[in-house]
Amino acid sequence: MTDDIGAFVPGPRVRIEGRAGGPLGGLTFAAKDLFDVAGVVTGGGNHDWPTGRPIPKKNAWAVQTLLDAGATLIGKTITDEVSLGILGENAFDGTPVNVRAPGRVPGGSSSGSAAAVAAGICDTALGTDTGGSVRVPASFCGLYGIRPTHGRIDVTGMLPQAPTSDTTGWFARDAATFARVSSALLSEAIPTALPTKLIVAVDTFGFADANVAEALQPTVKRLGALIGDSREEIMAPQGLSVWARAQRSLQPVEAYATFKDWLDKGNPRFAFSVAKALVMGSMIPESERVWANLMRQEARSRMKYLLPAGTILCLPTTPFPAPLCGQPLSVLDPLRDRITCLCAQGGLAGHPQVNIPGATVDGLPIGLSIIGPRGSDATLVAVARALDKTA
Amino acid sequence: MTDDIGAFVPGPRVRIEGRAGGPLGGLTFAAKDLFDVAGVVTGGGNHDWPTGRPIPKKNAWAVQTLLDAGATLIGKTITDEVSLGILGENAFDGTPVNVRAPGRVPGGSSSGSAAAVAAGICDTALGTDTGGSVRVPASFCGLYGIRPTHGRIDVTGMLPQAPTSDTTGWFARDAATFARVSSALLSEAIPTALPTKLIVAVDTFGFADANVAEALQPTVKRLGALIGDSREEIMAPQGLSVWARAQRSLQPVEAYATFKDWLDKGNPRFAFSVAKALVMGSMIPESERVWANLMRQEARSRMKYLLPAGTILCLPTTPFPAPLCGQPLSVLDPLRDRITCLCAQGGLAGHPQVNIPGATVDGLPIGLSIIGPRGSDATLVAVARALDKTA
Repeated sequence: MTDDIGAFVPGPRVRIEGRAGGPLGGLTFAAKDLFDVAGVVTGGGNHDWPTGRPIPKKNAWAVQTLLDAGATLIGKTITDEVSLGILGENAFDGTPVNVRAPGRVPGGSSSGSAAAVAAGICDTALGTDTGGSVRVPASFCGLYGIRPTHGRIDVTGMLPQAPTSDTTGWFARDAATFARVSSALLSEAIPTALPTKLIVAVDTFGFADANVAEALQPTVKRLGALIGDSREEIMAPQGLSVWARAQRSLQPVEAYATFKDWLDKGNPRFAFSVAKALVMGSMIPESERVWANLMRQEARSRMKYLLPAGTILCLPTTPFPAPLCGQPLSVLDPLRDRITCLCAQGGLAGHPQVNIPGATVDGLPIGLSIIGPRGSDATLVAVARALDKTA
Repeated sequence: MTDDIGAFVPGPRVRIEGRAGGPLGGLTFAAKDLFDVAGVVTGGGNHDWPTGRPIPKKNAWAVQTLLDAGATLIGKTITDEVSLGILGENAFDGTPVNVRAPGRVPGGSSSGSAAAVAAGICDTALGTDTGGSVRVPASFCGLYGIRPTHGRIDVTGMLPQAPTSDTTGWFARDAATFARVSSALLSEAIPTALPTKLIVAVDTFGFADANVAEALQPTVKRLGALIGDSREEIMAPQGLSVWARAQRSLQPVEAYATFKDWLDKGNPRFAFSVAKALVMGSMIPESERVWANLMRQEARSRMKYLLPAGTILCLPTTPFPAPLCGQPLSVLDPLRDRITCLCAQGGLAGHPQVNIPGATVDGLPIGLSIIGPRGSDATLVAVARALDKTA
């Protein structure tokens, strides 16, 4: 299939046939250009990243797992530079077209993977989610998407950013495909039993744009009916912005540590916004980092308390649908900060989160997320599949 | 002449014949890619700078003045990105070869101009000097070079950085050509009368590497003999590092103001070091800027006191010869900071400064600078010419 939406990295398209007879036979997938594919440069979304690095000899774990399950790799997709970005505008490789929201960003950093799946170029695609990089493009492109429990999916062969928050995730257009792919990558059957309690995180709905919260209500109601027992609760008693602040301190400090040696020796080129994020990461005081780490412990204990076995929580994945392409940083920076307020729990607490295409607002997709206990990834996928059947 | 040293911007080389019968007839020149040439993109050393900007319709004042004087333009030269850099390593266009110091940087930001003149590709070349961008490459490449009195040379058509420090300068290999070109650009005959008093700035010689200070001694002695009356004196009683700190506060604040709108709307790509300098410029506290401005007044009053009519001062242009190419930022940053300690007086006080090829250290060129009262530009050129005759 041609790539007329600019979702794939420039140059010849890699293709590797899936193993015959696997459970994902007949499916195609793409991999964000942070995942190693044997014999192919890992570009990392930055033209200076590959310099001086060996061509990978092995496929990343997630790539190999999909191939072994029978899916066919059809290309590598554009990412925000070394996964630093949440909107999907790459100054080197351009902005993949969001077919569900023309003229608007696809979301990032797994921009090309989300755009390619949304456009029907492939059935599923691998992304990474450190601070929202699967959840946000899933919401903006109207896709199913998962940020798995932190530490559950083997990240071998995936370009790291902030290891205590990094995860491998994936997208699909429909619930059935999402369940098939999830079962393969989670190495677990998708159960039929569902959780029995639903928490509606009222602080998060209050934080989203009013028309977003309103548009999601029918889906929240269907979800409540599906689960049975539903109640309202605050997710982050310390404040969504306080959790976001903690994540915005911990993640850049780790990202700077990850890339510091490369910056020093290679003085690589970045879009100004990306370089600025790294510089800011280098300047976060130790006192702030220490506090942020304590707040992370509070967030973890809160999420654990809220989410015993059998309970899930729902929230708007993003506070608004996809912003317009090409806006100034002074417009985009506050939007990014608001997005972080709804995504920070992922990096802080490491619970699995699934984005469900929740609604449209003025024709633009907006996602509803469900979060469960650590390790409940397959159950969240089961909820997404069961909810789809009630539509 | 071919450009096998990578001094010129990529693409077809612009050529404009000089006016027949002018005083610079027979000379060729190059212009740093910060100067407008009618019908040619001004690249600014950054691949995103030209985006959305009109092609210049007029030549920059300095370009037109050289053409009118009979010199022929043979190309536009590589510069550090938007003149932010002192070493001459451009992540987009590469590092022009310093033929006088193989394997070492040419110095910047007027890197290509200095390299082209040093290699004999042209007779003279235009540069800009905000914080040392003519003086440093002149020192590293063994050239004559001038940073004129601030405000003296019309900067129309020159890409600005920090307007209260920005100047237009130029290079030549020999004193006679340097005098011819200087006369045309200064619109003034080079006098025969010389100053009568020389100050040897002992703090600056003490700050340079010991072998640099020692290597320059014979030239300092010849200069003393030429001028007649010589004495030792401290240039910066508050400290060279204090003057440097003031310049390193004022210049980045102005540079950020110059480029802020472009950064916001264009999110352009930069080498990490350049983006970092801009980010740091955006973060300098107002209290620091206010202090730096007061220190600038002190530096101005000191230079005015030291340099009445008829007096010049000499100092090493740089503390060391050209560093090796391709070193990590953690090695280069402290070198850049030391260079600033010997260059800050230019931006702070605005006095004219001429670099004279002063000596070699282990075969590498090192410059001796002379500074005079504001407006004494032609007299400094006269000293350089007269000193050459004593060699």
